[in-house]
Amino acid sequence: MTKKIILDTDPGIDDVMAILFAEAHPEIELKAITTIYGNVTIEGATHNALYLKQKYQLQADVAQGASKPIVRPPVGPTVVVHGESGFGDVEVPAEVEGEADARPAYQYIIDAVKAEPKEITLVAIGPLTNLALALQAEPEIVNLVKEVVIMGGAFGVNDHRGNVTPYAEANIHDDPHAADIVFSASWPVVIIGLDVTEQSFFTGDYLDKLRVDAGEVGQFIWDVSRFYLKFYKEKVGLDACHVHDPSAIAYVIEPELFTLREGPVRVVTDGPAEGMTIQKFDGRKYLHDEWEKHTPQRVGVAVKDAELLEIYRQSIIDYGQKMS
Amino acid sequence: MTKKIILDTDPGIDDVMAILFAEAHPEIELKAITTIYGNVTIEGATHNALYLKQKYQLQADVAQGASKPIVRPPVGPTVVVHGESGFGDVEVPAEVEGEADARPAYQYIIDAVKAEPKEITLVAIGPLTNLALALQAEPEIVNLVKEVVIMGGAFGVNDHRGNVTPYAEANIHDDPHAADIVFSASWPVVIIGLDVTEQSFFTGDYLDKLRVDAGEVGQFIWDVSRFYLKFYKEKVGLDACHVHDPSAIAYVIEPELFTLREGPVRVVTDGPAEGMTIQKFDGRKYLHDEWEKHTPQRVGVAVKDAELLEIYRQSIIDYGQKMS
Repeated sequence: MTKKIILDTDPGIDDVMAILFAEAHPEIELKAITTIYGNVTIEGATHNALYLKQKYQLQADVAQGASKPIVRPPVGPTVVVHGESGFGDVEVPAEVEGEADARPAYQYIIDAVKAEPKEITLVAIGPLTNLALALQAEPEIVNLVKEVVIMGGAFGVNDHRGNVTPYAEANIHDDPHAADIVFSASWPVVIIGLDVTEQSFFTGDYLDKLRVDAGEVGQFIWDVSRFYLKFYKEKVGLDACHVHDPSAIAYVIEPELFTLREGPVRVVTDGPAEGMTIQKFDGRKYLHDEWEKHTPQRVGVAVKDAELLEIYRQSIIDYGQKMS
Repeated sequence: MTKKIILDTDPGIDDVMAILFAEAHPEIELKAITTIYGNVTIEGATHNALYLKQKYQLQADVAQGASKPIVRPPVGPTVVVHGESGFGDVEVPAEVEGEADARPAYQYIIDAVKAEPKEITLVAIGPLTNLALALQAEPEIVNLVKEVVIMGGAFGVNDHRGNVTPYAEANIHDDPHAADIVFSASWPVVIIGLDVTEQSFFTGDYLDKLRVDAGEVGQFIWDVSRFYLKFYKEKVGLDACHVHDPSAIAYVIEPELFTLREGPVRVVTDGPAEGMTIQKFDGRKYLHDEWEKHTPQRVGVAVKDAELLEIYRQSIIDYGQKMS
């Protein structure tokens, strides 16, 4: 059975990799791309999404989301990681066909899940502002969404604690208040954070082979990833990049790739650990325990990385052949 | 060479164990006991300290400290762990000889370290309010103290994350703002937290033997620990108690018992992780990194528990014989 998703994204290099993965895989129906600031500005995110829609004839709607976090001052786009355009060294044409939906992303999400109750999975791979705004505008959506899958956060598993601060992952750090709203809501959330995304690697070699085997799509992924790999080489010391955003799509396709840990999740919204995600996952009773009233959510703590990489590779190769 | 200490404490069952350990060990000169709310009220803490001074003819001064945290509302005494008196089932006489020093604890500390620059180690085994007040009143003490040794916090090592909330240890949870001031100051701090204190156990059997071998002192430690062991049995599921406060004294006596990890330490002061302690201990550079400007402190991450227990046992036995 096809899985219908709305993909909330700030494209972004690994967002491109995730969008094409979702579009490529036969079990996923990419209904809409809702955009969010993060790796790029909101205008850049929407422009990039519309460019991909045009370039790959995506059927997905595009709806523009929030331009800034709910409470904290904007952190600003991560140009150093994703380049000026958001697609690394690849220039995005100034003019693209098509237009975004007239509704803001949060309203698009509300309308979509109301139209197809329990059918749609929200997959968010950027800051969680749109999802939080949707929850605030229509709390009832907690009962209408099939599942919420998030790429974000870090829970200290395998020593993965943060990537933009020592204790925070970028998407959550960009809007910790929104993340806390999303994780605290009584809907089923699966969080694919650095604990697992930093356990999978697109190596230089892997991407070279994809370029050879996956036609124009493989070439495009290779092109956008040059800048990203350079960042990883210079700043992280890796001849590879982590598989961040595509891991959330991989979870939708094949949940068994991941081991999940259950328990309420909260976000530190202020101070030195701003954007830190924490989960209570033991059954222990504490003298002071505000966690007990919160919905248990599921956090990825292990991943079958080789299988994930193979599913990604095969999906993109098949898609490349279909598109040629 | 004798090590001069001021012991800041909220006695408290494991505080008694620590005070008697400090008094017992020939290498430690217990110059003063400064009191703090925490396990008991500030009045209870001072009364209990004066009672111990009388009962064991301590030479140490007693100075009364703060009655409440710097910013947050008081959490209140942990009667469920330490009993109404703070000494478990043991009743403390309503009248005790002696009086506390006229100065508040923070002023006592300032005067003492000015009188003997670089000679005195501050050992704090309760909430850190007194130390923070001393720093605020006289910032210069950072250069006058020999070392600061803290029992408190939890850094997630060996899965030790908290004891009063899922992510906070009691002493830090009682006054997170004070703890952040103390850890951020440019003086040398060693933090002996749950990561190591929960790795050492006073078993029922260990305390039974101490009762037999250490005279009246062994009997007193046995008496005060009955209530504590009952709490551990019922709430933690252990026939033992953790070696919390005495571990800080053990560090002063024999630093080599502990493996330390270096890096700036901060405290989460608000929200769901209130009282959580975090350390940046990798050399990695981050896009956003407010930690770099902070003093590296040392956090205990491993302990030679068998050796610690033997040093404690021998010290108390020797002291018991001396006192008989």
